Amino acid sequence: MHAWYSSHHLAHHGHGELIGGELLAGFELPVRAERVRDAFVAADLGEVLTPADAGLQPILAVHDARYVAFLQSAWAEWRALGRTHPALGMVWHAGLGLPREEPRHIEGKLGFYSIDAGCAIVEGTWEAAYWSAQCAVAGAQSLQRGEATALAVCRPPGHHAAAALMGGYCYLNNAAIAAQMLLATHGPRVGVLDIDYHHGNGTQAIFWQRDDVFFTSLHADPHDDYPYLSGHASEEGEGAGHGHTLNLPLPAGTTAPAYLAALEVAIDATLQRGCRAVVVSLGVDTFERDPISKFKLAMPDYLEIGRRLRRLRAAGVPLLFVFEGGYATDEVGSNAVNVLVGLERG
Amino acid sequence: MHAWYSSHHLAHHGHGELIGGELLAGFELPVRAERVRDAFVAADLGEVLTPADAGLQPILAVHDARYVAFLQSAWAEWRALGRTHPALGMVWHAGLGLPREEPRHIEGKLGFYSIDAGCAIVEGTWEAAYWSAQCAVAGAQSLQRGEATALAVCRPPGHHAAAALMGGYCYLNNAAIAAQMLLATHGPRVGVLDIDYHHGNGTQAIFWQRDDVFFTSLHADPHDDYPYLSGHASEEGEGAGHGHTLNLPLPAGTTAPAYLAALEVAIDATLQRGCRAVVVSLGVDTFERDPISKFKLAMPDYLEIGRRLRRLRAAGVPLLFVFEGGYATDEVGSNAVNVLVGLERG
Repeated sequence: MHAWYSSHHLAHHGHGELIGGELLAGFELPVRAERVRDAFVAADLGEVLTPADAGLQPILAVHDARYVAFLQSAWAEWRALGRTHPALGMVWHAGLGLPREEPRHIEGKLGFYSIDAGCAIVEGTWEAAYWSAQCAVAGAQSLQRGEATALAVCRPPGHHAAAALMGGYCYLNNAAIAAQMLLATHGPRVGVLDIDYHHGNGTQAIFWQRDDVFFTSLHADPHDDYPYLSGHASEEGEGAGHGHTLNLPLPAGTTAPAYLAALEVAIDATLQRGCRAVVVSLGVDTFERDPISKFKLAMPDYLEIGRRLRRLRAAGVPLLFVFEGGYATDEVGSNAVNVLVGLERG
Repeated sequence: MHAWYSSHHLAHHGHGELIGGELLAGFELPVRAERVRDAFVAADLGEVLTPADAGLQPILAVHDARYVAFLQSAWAEWRALGRTHPALGMVWHAGLGLPREEPRHIEGKLGFYSIDAGCAIVEGTWEAAYWSAQCAVAGAQSLQRGEATALAVCRPPGHHAAAALMGGYCYLNNAAIAAQMLLATHGPRVGVLDIDYHHGNGTQAIFWQRDDVFFTSLHADPHDDYPYLSGHASEEGEGAGHGHTLNLPLPAGTTAPAYLAALEVAIDATLQRGCRAVVVSLGVDTFERDPISKFKLAMPDYLEIGRRLRRLRAAGVPLLFVFEGGYATDEVGSNAVNVLVGLERG
């Protein structure tokens, strides 16, 4: 198995976030990806490789071109106002029922292209997001070459980013970019299995009306936790996509037995839909000591998650793991890599 | 002429706002309403009266009951999390295309019911917003009793609040509440003339599909300034309301000649629509030294605005002035009251 990692992610640092009514330094830190890479090496699972530059095309297959242009120019526009601190919006679309006309001012664009105040932009954000996506692209190419498993050590994460919206630390939807690529070789249907603590609202939105990507997500009940406004079991997709979204919200305090039972439901559904490749949005903020989450998975539980995923492998379904959340920096590497260890070694 | 003022507004203080990527102490300060009241007294325009309590009914004629219940309980829900600093949301609706299901968690509700991060909630917010609305109600009753002019010294302001959304320092839409009341006595059509520097997006949204309230607004071009996402000239209302919204955006740096020309257009349109009473959303953040605005009106220009409004009075149209924005605290009282002086004394 290969792990795809790019040091460009280090350029994205020093971004704060609005959380609990305060602007804090933020939990989505560069050390997170470093720990995952190091744990992968320590587990002796395979080589860590640097992705080639596949360009914008795979990104633009999922994201709106105007949004991508905004991400590329946002920092320069913010700096042109004389500001040197992280860029953060202040006003959002809120169902006022108006046509979505792109604002000209950077303050307006920041709100127009985001769902929350967790996506500050700093000088290196685009560089990091671009190469994070390239890790996912390289991971998808691993599967396209016939490999059974690959890991994309993506940072920043991606699953809260929609086609033209950033949110929840995410700018480009790495998992969606990979899934879109895999359709070409593993169609007619691929799966995204999102095991991050938070609902993958961006991924859901991207594939909401489509039947070629089956999206299923285990996450905190949105009644109780971020992103609050999506992730209910009643959300099942629309139009051609109806029945191709499966949300499995779980209550605060969830431990392994209930979590693994829901995982089995998600695996069953993924197999039933005939997915020929699966992108796993690998968040490990389900961990009991995660600083912003309320599930209670213990370190050995991540081994067990990996073991349960063997059922997909037994069905001949290759798996691309795309790193998402997980903010307990001391354990995030071990927890993420334990999923792979459980998968590979049982 | 009477001015309606309630000291309950003083309970709303200490709220910050997210602006320019920073959480600042905020510009919407208690002293603003004090200065307007004092300037009214100093100009010897009439009595300052305290409104009676007209209850929730006039508020609920404009706002959703669930939203009002949220405003009433928000601080207690926030406190129950052990937090003592101002409540501020973190995630917003952003066109993900999902049904609007009210979240159970206060963090979710704060985003669900707001368009931006300029509406922090503190312990006294509901008390202040309620009595601000009562000032507008009392002002509308002044006109209903046959008075030609009244001033509601509302604080917090209201024109960015929609039926179920707070935004831009606004929680209850005082101007919309008054306009709705005036329909009963001055129908079939009343006008809202919004001369605040910022687009009155909340008022527009409330009457967007209706033909009984004609909304017209002079404001900063949303391409360049808050609220960024609405206020374009192309927004004219929808359905029965088509043609009953008139937006007159003006560029940064606008001075009196261009401003007054646009005001004449707004007055013409208001008269042409046959409005039999007009609520003036009286923001004076068009002032050249306003700290968050980019127009260049000078103090004497507010006298001239009042003189131009005499054309409405000459047509027998009573005017209710509802205080909105204006953040140059040294001059906000004189500027607001100068409009009334120009109207009364030429």
